[in-house]
Amino acid sequence: MREVLKAGSLIEQPEITPEELQLAVRNHSMPVEALHYDVTPLGLHYLLIHFDIPAVDVSTWRLNVGGLVQHPLQISLDDIKSRPARTLAVTLECAGNGRARLSPRPQSQPWLGEAVGNAEWTGTSLWALVEDAVARDDATDVVFTGLDRGVQGEIEQQYERSLPIGEAMRDEVLLAYAINGQPLPPQHGFPLRLIVPGWYGMTHVKWLRSISLVKDGFDGYQQARAYHFRTLSDERGVPVTRILPRALMVPPGIPDFMTRTRFVEPGPCPIEGRAWSGRGAIAGVEFSSDGGMTWSDAALQPAASPFGWRRWTFAWTAEPGEHDLCVRATDDAGNAQPLEQNWNLEGVQNNAVQRVRVVAGSSSREVQKAADREP
Amino acid sequence: MREVLKAGSLIEQPEITPEELQLAVRNHSMPVEALHYDVTPLGLHYLLIHFDIPAVDVSTWRLNVGGLVQHPLQISLDDIKSRPARTLAVTLECAGNGRARLSPRPQSQPWLGEAVGNAEWTGTSLWALVEDAVARDDATDVVFTGLDRGVQGEIEQQYERSLPIGEAMRDEVLLAYAINGQPLPPQHGFPLRLIVPGWYGMTHVKWLRSISLVKDGFDGYQQARAYHFRTLSDERGVPVTRILPRALMVPPGIPDFMTRTRFVEPGPCPIEGRAWSGRGAIAGVEFSSDGGMTWSDAALQPAASPFGWRRWTFAWTAEPGEHDLCVRATDDAGNAQPLEQNWNLEGVQNNAVQRVRVVAGSSSREVQKAADREP
Repeated sequence: MREVLKAGSLIEQPEITPEELQLAVRNHSMPVEALHYDVTPLGLHYLLIHFDIPAVDVSTWRLNVGGLVQHPLQISLDDIKSRPARTLAVTLECAGNGRARLSPRPQSQPWLGEAVGNAEWTGTSLWALVEDAVARDDATDVVFTGLDRGVQGEIEQQYERSLPIGEAMRDEVLLAYAINGQPLPPQHGFPLRLIVPGWYGMTHVKWLRSISLVKDGFDGYQQARAYHFRTLSDERGVPVTRILPRALMVPPGIPDFMTRTRFVEPGPCPIEGRAWSGRGAIAGVEFSSDGGMTWSDAALQPAASPFGWRRWTFAWTAEPGEHDLCVRATDDAGNAQPLEQNWNLEGVQNNAVQRVRVVAGSSSREVQKAADREP
Repeated sequence: MREVLKAGSLIEQPEITPEELQLAVRNHSMPVEALHYDVTPLGLHYLLIHFDIPAVDVSTWRLNVGGLVQHPLQISLDDIKSRPARTLAVTLECAGNGRARLSPRPQSQPWLGEAVGNAEWTGTSLWALVEDAVARDDATDVVFTGLDRGVQGEIEQQYERSLPIGEAMRDEVLLAYAINGQPLPPQHGFPLRLIVPGWYGMTHVKWLRSISLVKDGFDGYQQARAYHFRTLSDERGVPVTRILPRALMVPPGIPDFMTRTRFVEPGPCPIEGRAWSGRGAIAGVEFSSDGGMTWSDAALQPAASPFGWRRWTFAWTAEPGEHDLCVRATDDAGNAQPLEQNWNLEGVQNNAVQRVRVVAGSSSREVQKAADREP
């Protein structure tokens, strides 16, 4: 296989290239005001799709479980649905979230910071299925192969990722066929996808075609080349795994269409948001209205799910003038959000604090009286 | 009101500004492979949201019908749902679709060409509701006010649009509370939105708060300033109304992640897509594999809805080499798609032909064997 990162894949300019725009108009963040919902409504959850969304005929679709197993399986969706079902609320975040704020900027999907969502996934336990297939003693890893096919890094491939067998057999790892109580729509992996609570989004393979047990690891492109934290192109790097802590706020007030600057009335201005980590429980959230110079503790609500985000609130009072609002989370494993991005070649696992520019009080803008308020 | 378009709102460079990117990561096109579905699955339909998505408490929400009427109404969602219901398949397209391909480029949501969707909308007829309110004889226009609020063109406003009363009373104009058989999700206008079949997307006001009958027109920002076809900033321009014809194809083969270049095997390569117009029935679709130098008729399937898109197919054979695939539609009112964009200051009502670059045959790329095909 060739170099994943070729010369020219870093961009110094702040402007986005036409190739990045092609990805940005297909894929989408969660509009940040949707942090208001504990369960992200269908259609608002972030989406990152490497190749095309496959259109799957479920009458002929089968999941193959094979490789280093004693009893290979071929299973229909009805078979999967007849197995014991679990529903888990899980926060998913793209490993490249925040990439477009790096300088120089790695060339890929240009996320700004809201590539996240918290959905209720219903499915059946992976471990029980692998138990039925009876893993051979020499199996070390489980490879998940999707039906989506394309070219990346000059290599034609199915989308494939693996997990060490111990991680794959964790109780909370699901083969999911429903989101928020509805069958998976095409873009979320119909008919079946993997859900690995706590891990970044690239792990949760969509449109599953097969599950293969292998030994001595898996060197597919998306596993061995992409999704590594590295600062030099000849470095092997550290694989991306679990989600680092992050907090985001619902930007208060009303936006300007083009700049997304926020306007609020001076006075009490309650702030709400969500915080999550795949490496521990959220231990604290802090809020700043002066760009991160001084911080105050936000109030944390109880977690609704061990794998989902946690609501927080802060009773801010907006003084007239301009403010640079920030929020940061820490988890009980000791991870905290940095004020500046940790630069790396792929732009992965960024969790620098969110910044929201707010103008409180009078401005030069005119106000258009709504038609239903005319005399 | 001030100038809608200020100096500096046109960009000469092909790269996208950070402000345009903020819009591109929130809003999204329909991933173009979703043309495969006659009814666009929820979450794949294009979205353009000017301000924030309001979170509406339906227990207190009411629709006000007022202005120049004899019997003002205040109606709950249950009242709306108890009225006679209709379901219509309607193709919606953003008026700014294709804007990012203009040069110089108007600064707004940078669409490339896939800001479209075809959904089944369920609602009740607007005309019957206005009949209950009894319009006064001097009413000339109907203003639709949304709950979404923000600043655009330096004017703070609710999102508001109007229709001439004759257009608003057309039989097919709906107040819709469901999409594809489900309650509207927040991003599509919960609890109630306007659907005006045949008109560009800005017409279909979401999160309706009120319907007001007025006389002598409506001069709100989104009606009198934005959404005009003009080439000079001091020109009044022509209001954007009904959708011009457009055809799009599902790009064949598999994509490259970053460039979205398509790779196909040489040989028979069936092409499918959809075509629509808000100004007449689709009369013909033509396909070209040489960048628009020569054209052949595509096969048209019957229209499933008078207001929805129409499927077309073409039996293309891919010779080895590179191809520039194009498609264009005409409607029975004599409208056709141009090969080049009609430049204008806001980048509205573009319908230049789609171009898809396809490489057929051998290339230098490696092929990664999928894990479930290993021995």
